[in-house]
Amino acid sequence: MIRAGIVGGTGYTGVELLRLLLPHPEVEVAVITSRAEAGQRVDAHFPNLRGYGDLCYTPPDLAELDTLDVVFFATPHGVAMDHAPGLLAKGVRVIDLGADFRLADAGLFARWYGMAHRAPEALAEARYGLPEYYRKQVGEARLVANPGCYPTAVILGFAPLLAEGLLEDGGLIADCKSGVSGAGRAARVDLIFPEVADSVNAYGVSGHRHRPEIEAVLSDIRGSGLELQFTPHLMPMIRGIHATLYGQLRRPLSDAALQDLFARRYAGEPFVDVMPFGSHPATRSVRGANVCRIALHQPRPGRVVILSVIDNLVKGAAGQAVQNMNRMFSLPEEMGLAHIALLP
Amino acid sequence: MIRAGIVGGTGYTGVELLRLLLPHPEVEVAVITSRAEAGQRVDAHFPNLRGYGDLCYTPPDLAELDTLDVVFFATPHGVAMDHAPGLLAKGVRVIDLGADFRLADAGLFARWYGMAHRAPEALAEARYGLPEYYRKQVGEARLVANPGCYPTAVILGFAPLLAEGLLEDGGLIADCKSGVSGAGRAARVDLIFPEVADSVNAYGVSGHRHRPEIEAVLSDIRGSGLELQFTPHLMPMIRGIHATLYGQLRRPLSDAALQDLFARRYAGEPFVDVMPFGSHPATRSVRGANVCRIALHQPRPGRVVILSVIDNLVKGAAGQAVQNMNRMFSLPEEMGLAHIALLP
Amino acid sequence: MIRAGIVGGTGYTGVELLRLLLPHPEVEVAVITSRAEAGQRVDAHFPNLRGYGDLCYTPPDLAELDTLDVVFFATPHGVAMDHAPGLLAKGVRVIDLGADFRLADAGLFARWYGMAHRAPEALAEARYGLPEYYRKQVGEARLVANPGCYPTAVILGFAPLLAEGLLEDGGLIADCKSGVSGAGRAARVDLIFPEVADSVNAYGVSGHRHRPEIEAVLSDIRGSGLELQFTPHLMPMIRGIHATLYGQLRRPLSDAALQDLFARRYAGEPFVDVMPFGSHPATRSVRGANVCRIALHQPRPGRVVILSVIDNLVKGAAGQAVQNMNRMFSLPEEMGLAHIALLP
Amino acid sequence: MIRAGIVGGTGYTGVELLRLLLPHPEVEVAVITSRAEAGQRVDAHFPNLRGYGDLCYTPPDLAELDTLDVVFFATPHGVAMDHAPGLLAKGVRVIDLGADFRLADAGLFARWYGMAHRAPEALAEARYGLPEYYRKQVGEARLVANPGCYPTAVILGFAPLLAEGLLEDGGLIADCKSGVSGAGRAARVDLIFPEVADSVNAYGVSGHRHRPEIEAVLSDIRGSGLELQFTPHLMPMIRGIHATLYGQLRRPLSDAALQDLFARRYAGEPFVDVMPFGSHPATRSVRGANVCRIALHQPRPGRVVILSVIDNLVKGAAGQAVQNMNRMFSLPEEMGLAHIALLP
Repeated sequence: MIRAGIVGGTGYTGVELLRLLLPHPEVEVAVITSRAEAGQRVDAHFPNLRGYGDLCYTPPDLAELDTLDVVFFATPHGVAMDHAPGLLAKGVRVIDLGADFRLADAGLFARWYGMAHRAPEALAEARYGLPEYYRKQVGEARLVANPGCYPTAVILGFAPLLAEGLLEDGGLIADCKSGVSGAGRAARVDLIFPEVADSVNAYGVSGHRHRPEIEAVLSDIRGSGLELQFTPHLMPMIRGIHATLYGQLRRPLSDAALQDLFARRYAGEPFVDVMPFGSHPATRSVRGANVCRIALHQPRPGRVVILSVIDNLVKGAAGQAVQNMNRMFSLPEEMGLAHIALLP
Repeated sequence: MIRAGIVGGTGYTGVELLRLLLPHPEVEVAVITSRAEAGQRVDAHFPNLRGYGDLCYTPPDLAELDTLDVVFFATPHGVAMDHAPGLLAKGVRVIDLGADFRLADAGLFARWYGMAHRAPEALAEARYGLPEYYRKQVGEARLVANPGCYPTAVILGFAPLLAEGLLEDGGLIADCKSGVSGAGRAARVDLIFPEVADSVNAYGVSGHRHRPEIEAVLSDIRGSGLELQFTPHLMPMIRGIHATLYGQLRRPLSDAALQDLFARRYAGEPFVDVMPFGSHPATRSVRGANVCRIALHQPRPGRVVILSVIDNLVKGAAGQAVQNMNRMFSLPEEMGLAHIALLP
Repeated sequence: MIRAGIVGGTGYTGVELLRLLLPHPEVEVAVITSRAEAGQRVDAHFPNLRGYGDLCYTPPDLAELDTLDVVFFATPHGVAMDHAPGLLAKGVRVIDLGADFRLADAGLFARWYGMAHRAPEALAEARYGLPEYYRKQVGEARLVANPGCYPTAVILGFAPLLAEGLLEDGGLIADCKSGVSGAGRAARVDLIFPEVADSVNAYGVSGHRHRPEIEAVLSDIRGSGLELQFTPHLMPMIRGIHATLYGQLRRPLSDAALQDLFARRYAGEPFVDVMPFGSHPATRSVRGANVCRIALHQPRPGRVVILSVIDNLVKGAAGQAVQNMNRMFSLPEEMGLAHIALLP
Repeated sequence: MIRAGIVGGTGYTGVELLRLLLPHPEVEVAVITSRAEAGQRVDAHFPNLRGYGDLCYTPPDLAELDTLDVVFFATPHGVAMDHAPGLLAKGVRVIDLGADFRLADAGLFARWYGMAHRAPEALAEARYGLPEYYRKQVGEARLVANPGCYPTAVILGFAPLLAEGLLEDGGLIADCKSGVSGAGRAARVDLIFPEVADSVNAYGVSGHRHRPEIEAVLSDIRGSGLELQFTPHLMPMIRGIHATLYGQLRRPLSDAALQDLFARRYAGEPFVDVMPFGSHPATRSVRGANVCRIALHQPRPGRVVILSVIDNLVKGAAGQAVQNMNRMFSLPEEMGLAHIALLP
């Protein structure tokens, strides 16, 4: 059994990790920390967990975390970087669901997150936890940076074409729509129901922290630098990301060839579903499931539209973290992740 | 392996049965019928099922159903009654998620459903599939009437007090709030999003088919006839029933005694969760899970308020049906039903 | 022109007052205060107001408020009571949309609001601003306590029967469902979209501040003390209250007689709509409008169910406040309140 | 007084026309037709209208329509074209809220709407009812084609830059998000609440009827043909369109110059609101109001993102129709359209 800990267990990625890890056949959740809720039962906080054990929050205690096999950080940025090096030194593997290790370039991190990176050595050994593109690296990693939710949907959608050098520079656009849980479980007026329900708006159009992450990873996959436009929108829904991706082909490609390229790239991938050409995946088709569904369109020759949907809390966060954990511990990647999406 | 069939698999109880049965370790879904969708893949209809087999809809075929171990009817009332007797004669067990066998009194059925009952012998042997109160009968049954969604929530909430003779006649009120999926997957103008979203209304206040079902079962549990008021409301949510139950105690009972009565009654029940006294269960705490959460209040001495929540598609329909099937086939009642509710 | 001020203009009742008062033909909104937003344009905060003047928030300034004709308090309880006496002394009329003057009994106020009442003289002269029952008093009042949202819906629904002595004591139940805006515009985790959407729960079942208000006013209308059970529920909708009211008739009354009683009582009332017997009013039918729609049911002889719906921010708050203001200044009660509800 | 008729008054544009026309100071709604609901009161169908007259549906009767000053068609395509010529011959002005007269090219109409145009002369004299660009023509028109909802939002957003020749060909993208009321009030399974709520999906990505309309009008405004990509998405909200528009500048333009261009273009327009540069308009800021709010972004030099929001039923349908009517009858364009958006 893998003895796992969760640091920062009162947010949405925390409860989602518990939903996935508590029934996981090879994991025992030994510790879940929260300074604010220390001593409280986890299921008093999240009543959906009633009946699944008597886990209580504890204050963060390094000595205790040091004894574990793996620690998940479900914390705001700036926390994991302070604790990861010590844990690694003790042989504990670390999966950070926050942003501390996603940008390999510490300068880029400083610019977008407004703080210097305090663990550059750890950063250097961190691996980007998108198994579909970094499976080998994840398998050998001690420290995994779990991708952001938007980046997961965008990268999985764009990468097959970019990896083959098939898209023009300059016209890449990711118009993304997210459910509100992506903003976290925070006491913010702009997130309360009457502010968000029955309405749609864009945000961060001039710049969002997930853009440099997407650009860096896609540049790495393609093998040369690229820029894209990224526009996030807030939707009146709880979970889900819908990425609508626009690109211009460098050379003509039939619909069938396009479809074939994606089908081949993701054949055998347990968590990427290439739907029939011309489909319109709905975010509800992945609600609660660790899957990314992708559909392709070519409304006019050369103009490709890729639709990519995930559940931001599963394939976009906790599910992908468990997938990475499975990989790091040489378990079957699907273990504990066989949930069918809840529809309706 | 139990070879199971689903008749009428294009509605919400149908897809929910598939979500639960496809991963069930002792079940093989051999047949799913739909006249309208015959020949179509089930996952073309319900893309959440993509990756879980290649089941296709078939036209209803009695000869094929006859070979199965169990058939679930997820059909409007009036269908199961025509097919159940034949299946029973062939040794096939039947679980009807519709209303055909819920009212033991054929006259009552005719009055509320506007049609004569065409299978009175089958009706006579049908057992009401609420294992918490009819466990033994379900275990021996060949034909189970799966309870209605409202009745499940109301009966589980009221029954402990009524069984002990602790509530006055005459003041029993069940004020119930339901998500829209309870109305089924039907092309009705009054169910489209702009008609239902961001609004609340009551319906069927003067009379609803679930009232006689509740009254009959609670009368049976108490051992004498009773009447209650039942007011259903439509909520702008997908799944969930919240029953707010009012009763007047016949004799003083402390909060602790009240709590103790429920705790003892449901101790050991895997799918009924008695929360701490004074709790306020939210329907989202049971979303996707086969559980009924109950909380007790006594705002003024003698005035009891019982809050009871379920997911109408799980404990209120498909989950309870699987629970009944497990029981009928002597499997552990929890088998295949360990889903943690999806929160948020 | 009436020169009006709004104290506490950053919440939902504040913006709703502006929506109603800015186009009001006899009102000029001269001042709107907010300590936190002082100096900011109101329409930067509430962009729906763009194009309707250049009002800015100012810090609360008593000298300025003293020059006005009327001041609306859209503040948490405890604020209006400190300022009302001074304003009244200067001849300024006061309408408090908060709770400070709703409970005539200062002891009751202290018990439910956890603070001593600091303006008992003002409390003594305050009038309860439900024009349908206190029209004359409101017309003569200098200080009006605008009713709570739940009390408005419940009182308008129960009062016609209680005033005639037609309901039994002891079985009065108000099961109420409210949109989230009723909780105000506050940075609270339990109000954010992912906590509230697609879910329903009760709250305050053991005791809610609106219960003593309802009991006091209905007792006054009936002429003798009464108790009722009050259960509020939170709905995943922005605006709206749906009150489902239960009572037991003291003597038989036909459906027609029941309907007639309400029709006669509210004939001529511009803001109470008695719908045909057996109707099911939806909250969306009053969205944005200053109206209470009521429908009657008698599912079994003697068992009356009254459905009463309002928009909590209009007839339940700002609209009723404007109605009261019209009355206090001898304007037609309907002035500035002719909005048709937004449906869908 | 203008005597107005509405043909097809049971859908959402019909009820919205009534909400705007019933209180309009210069309009009397003399006729509203519906074959299906003939004889029924309009407010039995739409209870928000209770208290605003006793209009009843009548069967369509040409003789009666002939006596009116203006007829609004709120019908599916193919209806207005059969009746408009006769009405025009009688001197009745016609405003078609459907699609029959939006595409000046009858061949284009036939291709996208699957039927030959049966009134080519009327089509030739029809004017496109977007007063911000065709004010003079609307003022002189006898027959106005009210724009589609998506086209209104997209054209108002793109036109200022295109009219000045400032955008590159080839990279124009309109990624649009719509509330469900845009699909009309139809009994369709795919529109019921459980199918649409808490989910997002694109539709018609390969081709949507509003694309040729947008392309034709923008080509006309620019003075030369253009193509754009148009991707509509269905949002879990009742009303509202959010258009996210992407373009590449032909020559560098500072943010201030960009802002100035829009500010000048729409100065004096009562129903277009250019927000401060870098704003993020939410659809709720226009809920129920006849306004288009626009905000500009330039995330990277030359890459322009224009956000444009409307209420699809108001500025996207009924409100714009009333605006056109005002213009056709030489009334102030704002008359009867001063509603402040409902927020929250």
